[in-house]
Amino acid sequence: MTSPIAVVVLAAGAGTRMKSTLPKVLHPLAGWPMLRHVLDNVGRLKPSRVVGVISPGAETVAAAFAPHRTVVQKRPVGTGDAAKAALGALKGHRGPVLVVFGDAPLVTTASMKKLITACARAKAAVGVLGFRSADPTPYGRLIVRDGVLEKIVESKDANVAEKAVDLCNSGVMCLEGGHVAALLGAIRNDNAKHEFYLTDAVGLARAAGLRTIAVEGDEAEFQGINSRVELAVAERALQERLRTAAMTAGVTMTDPDTVWLSADTRFASDVTIGPNVRFGPGVSVATGVQIRAFCDIEGARIGKGALIGPFARIRPGSDVGEDVHIGNFVELKATRMARGAKANHLAYLGDSDIGASSNIGAGTIAVNYDGYGKHRTVVGAEAFIGSNSSLIAPVRVGRGANVTAGSVITEDVPAGAVAFGRARQTTKKGRAAPLRAKLKERAAAAKRARKK
Amino acid sequence: MTSPIAVVVLAAGAGTRMKSTLPKVLHPLAGWPMLRHVLDNVGRLKPSRVVGVISPGAETVAAAFAPHRTVVQKRPVGTGDAAKAALGALKGHRGPVLVVFGDAPLVTTASMKKLITACARAKAAVGVLGFRSADPTPYGRLIVRDGVLEKIVESKDANVAEKAVDLCNSGVMCLEGGHVAALLGAIRNDNAKHEFYLTDAVGLARAAGLRTIAVEGDEAEFQGINSRVELAVAERALQERLRTAAMTAGVTMTDPDTVWLSADTRFASDVTIGPNVRFGPGVSVATGVQIRAFCDIEGARIGKGALIGPFARIRPGSDVGEDVHIGNFVELKATRMARGAKANHLAYLGDSDIGASSNIGAGTIAVNYDGYGKHRTVVGAEAFIGSNSSLIAPVRVGRGANVTAGSVITEDVPAGAVAFGRARQTTKKGRAAPLRAKLKERAAAAKRARKK
Amino acid sequence: MTSPIAVVVLAAGAGTRMKSTLPKVLHPLAGWPMLRHVLDNVGRLKPSRVVGVISPGAETVAAAFAPHRTVVQKRPVGTGDAAKAALGALKGHRGPVLVVFGDAPLVTTASMKKLITACARAKAAVGVLGFRSADPTPYGRLIVRDGVLEKIVESKDANVAEKAVDLCNSGVMCLEGGHVAALLGAIRNDNAKHEFYLTDAVGLARAAGLRTIAVEGDEAEFQGINSRVELAVAERALQERLRTAAMTAGVTMTDPDTVWLSADTRFASDVTIGPNVRFGPGVSVATGVQIRAFCDIEGARIGKGALIGPFARIRPGSDVGEDVHIGNFVELKATRMARGAKANHLAYLGDSDIGASSNIGAGTIAVNYDGYGKHRTVVGAEAFIGSNSSLIAPVRVGRGANVTAGSVITEDVPAGAVAFGRARQTTKKGRAAPLRAKLKERAAAAKRARKK
Repeated sequence: MTSPIAVVVLAAGAGTRMKSTLPKVLHPLAGWPMLRHVLDNVGRLKPSRVVGVISPGAETVAAAFAPHRTVVQKRPVGTGDAAKAALGALKGHRGPVLVVFGDAPLVTTASMKKLITACARAKAAVGVLGFRSADPTPYGRLIVRDGVLEKIVESKDANVAEKAVDLCNSGVMCLEGGHVAALLGAIRNDNAKHEFYLTDAVGLARAAGLRTIAVEGDEAEFQGINSRVELAVAERALQERLRTAAMTAGVTMTDPDTVWLSADTRFASDVTIGPNVRFGPGVSVATGVQIRAFCDIEGARIGKGALIGPFARIRPGSDVGEDVHIGNFVELKATRMARGAKANHLAYLGDSDIGASSNIGAGTIAVNYDGYGKHRTVVGAEAFIGSNSSLIAPVRVGRGANVTAGSVITEDVPAGAVAFGRARQTTKKGRAAPLRAKLKERAAAAKRARKK
Repeated sequence: MTSPIAVVVLAAGAGTRMKSTLPKVLHPLAGWPMLRHVLDNVGRLKPSRVVGVISPGAETVAAAFAPHRTVVQKRPVGTGDAAKAALGALKGHRGPVLVVFGDAPLVTTASMKKLITACARAKAAVGVLGFRSADPTPYGRLIVRDGVLEKIVESKDANVAEKAVDLCNSGVMCLEGGHVAALLGAIRNDNAKHEFYLTDAVGLARAAGLRTIAVEGDEAEFQGINSRVELAVAERALQERLRTAAMTAGVTMTDPDTVWLSADTRFASDVTIGPNVRFGPGVSVATGVQIRAFCDIEGARIGKGALIGPFARIRPGSDVGEDVHIGNFVELKATRMARGAKANHLAYLGDSDIGASSNIGAGTIAVNYDGYGKHRTVVGAEAFIGSNSSLIAPVRVGRGANVTAGSVITEDVPAGAVAFGRARQTTKKGRAAPLRAKLKERAAAAKRARKK
Repeated sequence: MTSPIAVVVLAAGAGTRMKSTLPKVLHPLAGWPMLRHVLDNVGRLKPSRVVGVISPGAETVAAAFAPHRTVVQKRPVGTGDAAKAALGALKGHRGPVLVVFGDAPLVTTASMKKLITACARAKAAVGVLGFRSADPTPYGRLIVRDGVLEKIVESKDANVAEKAVDLCNSGVMCLEGGHVAALLGAIRNDNAKHEFYLTDAVGLARAAGLRTIAVEGDEAEFQGINSRVELAVAERALQERLRTAAMTAGVTMTDPDTVWLSADTRFASDVTIGPNVRFGPGVSVATGVQIRAFCDIEGARIGKGALIGPFARIRPGSDVGEDVHIGNFVELKATRMARGAKANHLAYLGDSDIGASSNIGAGTIAVNYDGYGKHRTVVGAEAFIGSNSSLIAPVRVGRGANVTAGSVITEDVPAGAVAFGRARQTTKKGRAAPLRAKLKERAAAAKRARKK
């Protein structure tokens, strides 16, 4: 493919069946907005330009296209009109123009390339990606004879012979740059719905004596998304791709169906993942890491040999070092754990920096928020933070220091020091019985009061 | 349907294959006892009476039928006998009598209506719901000729021609009220098993020159439940119905297969639900709510725009206000969080009332139980409860008050006050090394002791 | 089966497609290393000897075979050579020699027995387990005529007629002890890959005029594991077996697909398990136990009527007594909870012994680790441990004692005593406003500093 490629992404559809205030192409899929998957796949074509077609006022969609240019389709009068709206932005382009859909995020770069290459080879003015379907009923059919795409027939307009055709229209189209303006400009809306159909470009090209072809792809790639049920189906398909790729690269998943990945999750080999682990965007996992059941990880780096979970939550901005242990009911947020540090039980470490080989006791809270600002907690290497302690940030605990269990630490603790911040124990013999009698009577009184 | 409808629900089966002390029809399904689904579907027919047939001593089943009447089938001698047991309770009824099974909770109201309507239209004395099955082997077959249900043949008694019939008996039957006593009374047990079969009503009606018909329904509705494996299959079917309905109404589910709903879960549109969320009975979720992965919610109202989870547990009696945040490892029980209040990390709030825009620090415990009674914690608006605090109920923290981290609050805190309940920090320089030496020696001594 | 049986387990494969430093046969499956499933199934044959064939230096694999003997296959030159490596260890054996694969853990004892019995009955020198496959393409075919296994043809070497055969080679073979040395010794590597194929034993036996047979088994049992994707498929198959067995025995699972069992998980009847529960190895669950959603249990005994979860983690060495309640975000490690004891919310109990009917408050930590040694916490019966308490082990709280909320307990508490270890509350009226002004200014200053 030597000619520069332009891509038009149609993203002006209303998406009413989503029943949502969020534009359809921004609904999330594998941790990304739907549209980002399309742009990511398109991007691998290294196109010379990408033009998004959006509906009026769709600023969040325009922002999602950035840095690519967007143009506005003024009224929702069909895909032909939508593609035409991009013509201005295509001025000066020589080479193929690929038209894809913002709500069809499963189309792979490989299929796009296959179409473009086939068009170039056949010197076709129009090429369309099709797929064989066991149940073609809902789809337009590609009528191909002797290698020529004769026309695209809508399902409801198909005659008996055409209904028997199982090659369906994916909607993805490649137009030769030299012809694109003339073809799109000639599409008319003299039909029942008064819409401009992009598919008419095929007939128009044929009428002009130009070559038109169909290229076959895999049905699984061409599912469009029009409802939340279809969104869930696409999510599953994407997850299966991501899971299989991870396993093939050396990741063990006890139950792959219960591991949810983001499009950008990165794994080294010999990673083990238990059931029920969710990876939000921005996670990389080094070799030898073991992630147990019921973890939720997002925006974090997990270092070599770390042991995570079960029931761990690691939030964005966290950096979990080599051989670190993060145990159950522990939350990290924007926290760095240096090599060999451990927080094994019920703890919240926010905006913290925990030194190598330090041990964070059960129930420890790094108190990062005072109602107005967020502050940092810095713990040196080989420190020992006793259970149920509160480290009131900003605060520093020095290297090798001990904080005793149950302490509230408000001042810095120098290296090698022991800090206490708790009351001494007082024990009163024989006092449980009268205390209990009092509590019992209080409960009984409350019960009597409720009955009145 | 102008005639009043009576429904007989057969629920006297032994259910031995469940291997349970709990009666079969009370086993849970989508958060309800199985029988409640049947009664709910039956209830939408607005029947003039519902009669449950139960086995002797099945008081919990009788209670589950309330306020409907139950009658006892004295000995387990067949479905015909069971239906006959209801005759007394049907006295005076004019109109159709629908017989359904307590262990077939997937039969929809629509199918029941279809049967009743068809019987009325055809003036049939007996109508039976049937279904087409790809593998009819296990089922009795409906032998229909010229629109007449000629008979129901048990699978083992079917001849070659009958075995080829794929229209199967669902068991659901509609009898004309005027004939029901005579038909049920005429059923005999002169067969191999000495049982009274309800299906014999068809032959008896035909012999009396009455009209008998079959009405077709969807196989998926007619799965009976006889074992825990079948219970799990029915649970899945019900969940799929509930999930699809929720998505169609505007709920996004990352992975619908891992969202467990109750029959009464209610959603507004634009709700987002991550993987692995369980809704127990009695939950309503307002628009714009985001429920992240790994949550367990039961008996609670979730207000508009609230952000829940991951790893949140919300228990019955809770009311989560608009824009409230409930974060990881947080448990609410019978707690009201007013608009904009936050409890983001590791906290237990039981029997509490948290004011608008208040912030509950990580590790906070509302200590509601003293071993005898449960007491309330009331926190005013815009209060700030520091991390790792214990609020010993009954206690009130006033509007705009601050409780410092690590405090034990035993007395009410007035509005605008600051309350401390913690020791001052003491730091002893250079003391970590001797402390560690001591602890090390203690560990070594313990090890030596264990070896002995 | 009166003759003693010898079993040869081939476990010398390289497993490069696993992309792992862990030998393939040690990858985990239902909580056990893959090989242990094979040895467990083989063990039920009560074989007189089991010989493992391993690759050079595979010490961890040899250890996994213990107490069985292993022999080393020096170079990876085929299954025939691998089996031959076991000949020395089979010396003196009279009776059938069963050859199975360490990476095919789904083969049941029943199928092995069926093969051995059929060989004995037919006096066959060689018998092979085969299976019918809808898509036999990837497999070698068993060519059987008149009850005689004529040969095994590799898929790529099969002619048109042979390709049409759907009886496939599982690899599992039974050789008569009296012929095994001669047959294995005669296998040659005069083929394209210069490998010794165990399947050649069939042709060699036939050439020697010996009887050879094929025995049919179920395709599902014969999946070998060569990649992590196949490992996940096998895990699912095993889980389905285990789940179905549990449900049949009287366990209700809301969603069986999300309950992960270990090969040795044991259940009594009337156990209820919510969605998303993982059982690691070594768990037994008594009757009437309810395990709610999102639990992780390993190496523990759960007593009659106990109520676990949601979000409970129970680690090895724990013994949860009758009617005990373990609630959300609670971790037990090597902890005994006696009858009726409760720990319902956010707690860590490690190396502890909690007496009958005692109540452990929310946020309680049994501080078992001091950086050097692990120590025990012992709580007597009917004690009440207030919320957010820290019990610094080694420590004993006596029967019927009360520890007040927020206490740090460093010394033993006698029976019936009340122990405090917390500061008194101080309340400063009107001080929240100036405190907040100060915090606000600090946050603003920090913001200014970050901007510079």
